[in-house]
Amino acid sequence: MGDPLGPFGRDRTRLSKNAVMDPQRTVADLGEFKLIDEVVKQVGTGQHVLIGPGDDAAQVSTKGGSYLVSTDVLIEGRHFRRDWSSAAEIGQKAAACNLSDISAMGGVANALTVGFAAPGDLAADWVIEMIKGFVFECDHIGARIVGGDVTASDKIVIAVTAMGEAHRPVRRSGAAPGDIVAFAGRLGWAGAGFAALSRGFRSPKLAVDAHRVPHPPYAAGPQAAGIGATSMTDVSDGLLADAGHIAVASGVAIDFESSCFEIAEPVATVGEALGVDPLTFVLTGGDDYALVATFSAQTVLPKEWTRIGVVTDGTGVTVDGVPYEGAQGHEHFR
Amino acid sequence: MGDPLGPFGRDRTRLSKNAVMDPQRTVADLGEFKLIDEVVKQVGTGQHVLIGPGDDAAQVSTKGGSYLVSTDVLIEGRHFRRDWSSAAEIGQKAAACNLSDISAMGGVANALTVGFAAPGDLAADWVIEMIKGFVFECDHIGARIVGGDVTASDKIVIAVTAMGEAHRPVRRSGAAPGDIVAFAGRLGWAGAGFAALSRGFRSPKLAVDAHRVPHPPYAAGPQAAGIGATSMTDVSDGLLADAGHIAVASGVAIDFESSCFEIAEPVATVGEALGVDPLTFVLTGGDDYALVATFSAQTVLPKEWTRIGVVTDGTGVTVDGVPYEGAQGHEHFR
Repeated sequence: MGDPLGPFGRDRTRLSKNAVMDPQRTVADLGEFKLIDEVVKQVGTGQHVLIGPGDDAAQVSTKGGSYLVSTDVLIEGRHFRRDWSSAAEIGQKAAACNLSDISAMGGVANALTVGFAAPGDLAADWVIEMIKGFVFECDHIGARIVGGDVTASDKIVIAVTAMGEAHRPVRRSGAAPGDIVAFAGRLGWAGAGFAALSRGFRSPKLAVDAHRVPHPPYAAGPQAAGIGATSMTDVSDGLLADAGHIAVASGVAIDFESSCFEIAEPVATVGEALGVDPLTFVLTGGDDYALVATFSAQTVLPKEWTRIGVVTDGTGVTVDGVPYEGAQGHEHFR
Repeated sequence: MGDPLGPFGRDRTRLSKNAVMDPQRTVADLGEFKLIDEVVKQVGTGQHVLIGPGDDAAQVSTKGGSYLVSTDVLIEGRHFRRDWSSAAEIGQKAAACNLSDISAMGGVANALTVGFAAPGDLAADWVIEMIKGFVFECDHIGARIVGGDVTASDKIVIAVTAMGEAHRPVRRSGAAPGDIVAFAGRLGWAGAGFAALSRGFRSPKLAVDAHRVPHPPYAAGPQAAGIGATSMTDVSDGLLADAGHIAVASGVAIDFESSCFEIAEPVATVGEALGVDPLTFVLTGGDDYALVATFSAQTVLPKEWTRIGVVTDGTGVTVDGVPYEGAQGHEHFR
């Protein structure tokens, strides 16, 4: 019997089994963001792709509607540690960082898929507790786990895809000079908690807990969309780094005013204990999943949003008019 | 300054930081399928979840429409080997096995997200070639990569989520006694290729290539839905194992007739070389992503579909009326 598929009619000449590769140019050399740029160059567009790669979530049309989708991969030892966080906390955080991406588009998340890989000797109850954490976080906004995959690996891998809907998706590219910049949620809490945990401390509890389980201000995303936010993103890598994505996508400069930031007590406590300016946590700490957005200057901000800066002509992100000294935020492969 | 979020109002009593876990009951003890059962018990339903976990894809409603979604996690050394397959082939296969899940619901896939983790010393060009493989496979059916994530890990992880649409999703649960069973695509090719590669052979080329890059019969999925398929799934773990999922979901028994299977030449060649009955590859080999479906007995099957068995009262899957001896297919953690 021949091949039941018959000739495939697939022109494979575009693909090479022995592609010329430069082994000297590694993923680490390029870095996370340049690698993503190179990948996105390969990806075509389609009529059904209303928003493609480069925002917090993509938007895909269906017959009669559309949905938002975003994905994240979390690796044990890099994104979470079993000696720092319980299984339920790790599940909550994995859900939160993905649900936040939908919120950052001005949408409401309603579905998740969870791909999970782990060593065979992991306690089955650990997985059940992790899923309870997922379900708990999803329940805040009515989202549900709709599917998943389970496989074996040496280290735990949690791959999450979140989906949802938005009346009017807010992209990173709409900020204009003259707009104001505002944030909702927490800034610096998780970063301070991470710094404390990294030095072997287990307190202050509020900061450490903030690192273990973020509390994204989910409702502030659609709220911002409703009052005309011109751009928005969530703060996963650090305020300066993520505001930088808005600045690049919008072709503008952003200046933060340090006097606008009030330092929360747990953040101040960690700063004092470690001899670090607590503003560093606020400006460069990741993992709180605050939202940062831009609005026209006339916008009356609801109480959930705090004005922290302005959009101007130019490029880059500054604090009180000058570039911020020190690390701007987290980048993988560094 | 206090917490900008105010009180969360989140009742965390449902979650325990120190949950009682039985360390003796491991993921490997439970096995892949029982673990999934335990996980699914934790997952609630929602009005917008039209089809939840347990099928090849879930179906989620949007305002005015709906979409299908399915996810898979592929781990280097378990799902692919860089010394067996090129980067482009690995990308093609990762895309194919996910696009196939949408087809197996009777749908047409149109969007993918790709989560990717790799060691920093991986050649950046390897990633670019892998993405070219994804794009090549997606182009067959007009699907697009709409988003993704890149992070660092010790081993390569490829987490794919595929989305699409179906006029009438076909589930695993609709088979009824008296129905006929049919398949579309290839059976045994990839399994034979895997057996050859595992013993150090690089031929026969057609079988080895089939393991490297499957050719799912994408169009046969919506075709089957159109002519009234009562149940359907794709063959990723082996025909007997995957037909077993239909049997359980539908509460029926399935009997295959061995005389209905023609053995393709590359499959026969591998069987002869390795001293294995080639029917073993057809019945238990995974990774070809054939489709297996049931239809009412009166259905006139299009040429893409071949009748291979019947649905009867009872439970379990048999071949010529008796249980098949030997491994039924692949299960992780074994």
